Amino acid sequence: MLGTMMRYPLTLNSLLERVGQLFPSVEVVARIPGKSVLRTSYGEAHRRARALAEMLQKAGLRRGDRVATLMWNQHVHLEAYLGVPAAGGVLHTLNLRLAPQELAYIVNHAQDRVLIVDDVLLSLYESFAAQVKLERVLVVRLSGAPVPAGCEDYEEFIREASGDFQYPDLDENEAAGMCYTSGTTGTPKGVVYSHRALVLHAMNFALPDVCCISQQDVVMALAPMFHVNAHGVPLTAVMTGAKLVFPGRYLDPESVLELFESEQVTFASAVPTVWLGILQALESQPGRWKLAPGMHGMAGGSALPESLLRGLDRQGIPMTHCWGMTETTPIVTASNLKSYMRDWPEDRRYEMRARQGRPSPFMEIRTMAGDDSAPWDGATPGELQVKGPWVAASYYNMPQGGERWSSDGWLRTGDVANIDPEGYVKIVDRIKDLIKSGGEWISSVDLENAIVAHPDVREAAVIAVSHPKWQERPLAVVVPREGAQLNTSTLRAFLAPKFASWQLPDAFVFVEQLPHTSTGKLLKAALRKQYRDWVWEKIS
Amino acid sequence: MLGTMMRYPLTLNSLLERVGQLFPSVEVVARIPGKSVLRTSYGEAHRRARALAEMLQKAGLRRGDRVATLMWNQHVHLEAYLGVPAAGGVLHTLNLRLAPQELAYIVNHAQDRVLIVDDVLLSLYESFAAQVKLERVLVVRLSGAPVPAGCEDYEEFIREASGDFQYPDLDENEAAGMCYTSGTTGTPKGVVYSHRALVLHAMNFALPDVCCISQQDVVMALAPMFHVNAHGVPLTAVMTGAKLVFPGRYLDPESVLELFESEQVTFASAVPTVWLGILQALESQPGRWKLAPGMHGMAGGSALPESLLRGLDRQGIPMTHCWGMTETTPIVTASNLKSYMRDWPEDRRYEMRARQGRPSPFMEIRTMAGDDSAPWDGATPGELQVKGPWVAASYYNMPQGGERWSSDGWLRTGDVANIDPEGYVKIVDRIKDLIKSGGEWISSVDLENAIVAHPDVREAAVIAVSHPKWQERPLAVVVPREGAQLNTSTLRAFLAPKFASWQLPDAFVFVEQLPHTSTGKLLKAALRKQYRDWVWEKIS
Repeated sequence: MLGTMMRYPLTLNSLLERVGQLFPSVEVVARIPGKSVLRTSYGEAHRRARALAEMLQKAGLRRGDRVATLMWNQHVHLEAYLGVPAAGGVLHTLNLRLAPQELAYIVNHAQDRVLIVDDVLLSLYESFAAQVKLERVLVVRLSGAPVPAGCEDYEEFIREASGDFQYPDLDENEAAGMCYTSGTTGTPKGVVYSHRALVLHAMNFALPDVCCISQQDVVMALAPMFHVNAHGVPLTAVMTGAKLVFPGRYLDPESVLELFESEQVTFASAVPTVWLGILQALESQPGRWKLAPGMHGMAGGSALPESLLRGLDRQGIPMTHCWGMTETTPIVTASNLKSYMRDWPEDRRYEMRARQGRPSPFMEIRTMAGDDSAPWDGATPGELQVKGPWVAASYYNMPQGGERWSSDGWLRTGDVANIDPEGYVKIVDRIKDLIKSGGEWISSVDLENAIVAHPDVREAAVIAVSHPKWQERPLAVVVPREGAQLNTSTLRAFLAPKFASWQLPDAFVFVEQLPHTSTGKLLKAALRKQYRDWVWEKIS
Repeated sequence: MLGTMMRYPLTLNSLLERVGQLFPSVEVVARIPGKSVLRTSYGEAHRRARALAEMLQKAGLRRGDRVATLMWNQHVHLEAYLGVPAAGGVLHTLNLRLAPQELAYIVNHAQDRVLIVDDVLLSLYESFAAQVKLERVLVVRLSGAPVPAGCEDYEEFIREASGDFQYPDLDENEAAGMCYTSGTTGTPKGVVYSHRALVLHAMNFALPDVCCISQQDVVMALAPMFHVNAHGVPLTAVMTGAKLVFPGRYLDPESVLELFESEQVTFASAVPTVWLGILQALESQPGRWKLAPGMHGMAGGSALPESLLRGLDRQGIPMTHCWGMTETTPIVTASNLKSYMRDWPEDRRYEMRARQGRPSPFMEIRTMAGDDSAPWDGATPGELQVKGPWVAASYYNMPQGGERWSSDGWLRTGDVANIDPEGYVKIVDRIKDLIKSGGEWISSVDLENAIVAHPDVREAAVIAVSHPKWQERPLAVVVPREGAQLNTSTLRAFLAPKFASWQLPDAFVFVEQLPHTSTGKLLKAALRKQYRDWVWEKIS
């Protein structure tokens, strides 16, 4: 027996139409080249996204065809987020931090037909243009550069629209967006987001127990829009009608804080590294920026160290620590406390909030140690596996990607985690980053989080280096704060109370910077290569 | 091209499993017969709902079979809310305020196979038992009454469960719940809620722009659980893991306020009449109850007078005014302000909040004046029509119910409304309650809301009475507060500044009480009948 309810599909087009109808005067603000601030509105976004959709259809875009973007976070990128799916197309966000040959591979693999590109990124496009076959390249001329031969002016393209665009009649499982994983190794793999997945993710994102977004918020899309839908922020803002702020390419802490203050931003989402820069700026220039009361944030993409969480609390920006990945749209878990945890001692509350959190509604989690599901005891590690309506079931056009999924259909995340009795996940490590010392496991993530809690440390990476006696031992590579004097014995003494002595790194190397992936994660593969031939001083 | 996402159905079973896994220690509190308070938990609710599901299956319940409840709001009713759909069955909540012959009709029309009944309601069941064919009647013995012949003890029924229950593999469009409309006229009509509709409704209900429910809340299911899923409150509480409080049959203001205080309730949802009683108790006994800080509420089911909204604000219980109906699961609109309305003058803010609000995500609204869609000008009235994923597309097994839907598939609500340029709905009247005076329309709802704003008025109804010259004219039937002295000229003078003189009621009748439907709405049909032969004093 079926319900007597309407068969009404969950599509981004509902959100686009609604934001145009209910919130046309709400501001959309973007930093553009030259660092000036451009003020537009959801009314304009609605009109221009529909114009883009109309002109893409008139240019021959068919249902499911891919339209790529190579853009910073700005208002025209929002038009593409909404207008491409409105046309029945699939928005494919290209990661502008990738190498030209990777971009060429991805564009070709996705069979992108159209590219929308910021004029300040034209040289990046030109670096791989010869290797791809795009039918149209639309240039967004925010810096005013001339349109190169073979390209078109985006404004002229959408100007021809008559305004009589009609939405196609879409199934909610049709593709709306696409993103390739930024794996540190291996071939990039495409995840295709359905309308349904993006819409449910936006509803979940806005829930009070996840990021708590209402129309009253002023939301900054700080995580890159080419990186898993900017954590879901732009679509959630559109769903709620919250004012939306784009930082453009000005991502240094001072520029971001300036915009936090001038637009009275109440919510932003970013990777911990970005929040760390913001915290350091706030601490080094107390009172310089007057932030909005009630500001809150989300940190995801890599583990949020407890010291950073505490520091941002002191600055009045409480964080929700979330976990997810490109394959999960991305948010699966969020670390907000449960009601009865409010009465717990402060240290225990921070310990819980520094975990990756409990699963959202409709998200299932488990940790697998071999073929067995590990108990939720807060100790037993296993590979984190997830299931749910916004979790990928396969990669785009990649039959050999099947090993990512268990035989019973769960996504194997590649993260090693434990789950505590409250259902809060703690990511211990990437499977490939765990250190195996004399048959025991050492978590590089735990060591890194503990090292960065030292006031003189800016960043740290811990890697496994092969060892003649113990098989592997941890080596810490540390970036001190400017002017700070750090040495191995200071750090070992600092860590000693928190770890068993056999878990402590045997050596500390001090460097000026660490290598990162295009999305800001530590590039441990490069470090491992660099220190492959490390010689341990004494073999005890 | 489809997304590469998992096909993961949105079902209540996900919510049941999650609340058992993540929130087993969170309290579920219920007032039971004798007025004592019973404390149980989501862990128990999870175990017992699964036991109920297992035993229903073992008793031969097949997919889609209906299980009826005749119960007050209490913890066992929650088990039925979760356990019946878990078994693949359909929970059919019977309205205990209906007459025996109506209940018999509804049970027979729905083909209910099983009934779960509170022992304090056994006499009501017995009043129609002979007219229905139920295979099993399970008695919840909270008052300790003996189980009559032909019935079974609910506790004994579920005690047999082995605990090895396996959820069926459900499609999200399958039926989970059923409710018959409490129409004041005509045959009762069944609405069948799918898992998908109930789940999306719960997500929407919890959004900060609707009722803003988090796990930190203490939620009271105050609206009856036999009335449109108690406005969605119990399932939203289960989804978020918020502590849940049931008032049982103790619905007088003092009993409810006592429970608000003792359980530190932070959210409740009820019809305006119930909130009015609560307000009057708070005003007449200032300081008696110490309510939870941050308490908030939802009012729906009939129009929320601005005076009541202001009064509850003064008592620290800000209301969200929502609109919906049995056919819409129920919430379609919510009257929270938009960000820029915070700067509006106080009177204008109250005017907006007293409207029924703007549509939730995925809910489409329009007003139709004849064949044309009315402009969103805040003035032109038309029939409110709605569309969306939790809106009914038909009635259960009633081919002749088709007139409820427009030819293009919208639900015709029967409410006359205008929509303002901000997209906020204002219900002007039921189509059949509008007064047609000399070719002009007068809104009975507007007059009623204005009359109840008078401090000496407890309740008021305005009806159309036929008039020899003007076709129809408004007659006001007013219940004064105890001990108050009211007369026609006082009330006419009170209303005069707010209406054109031709809109004012020509006569006021003072009575001790007004007739209501089983769900607390004014029963205007009865009043119209009573005053059918009214003779106007002077014909001007």
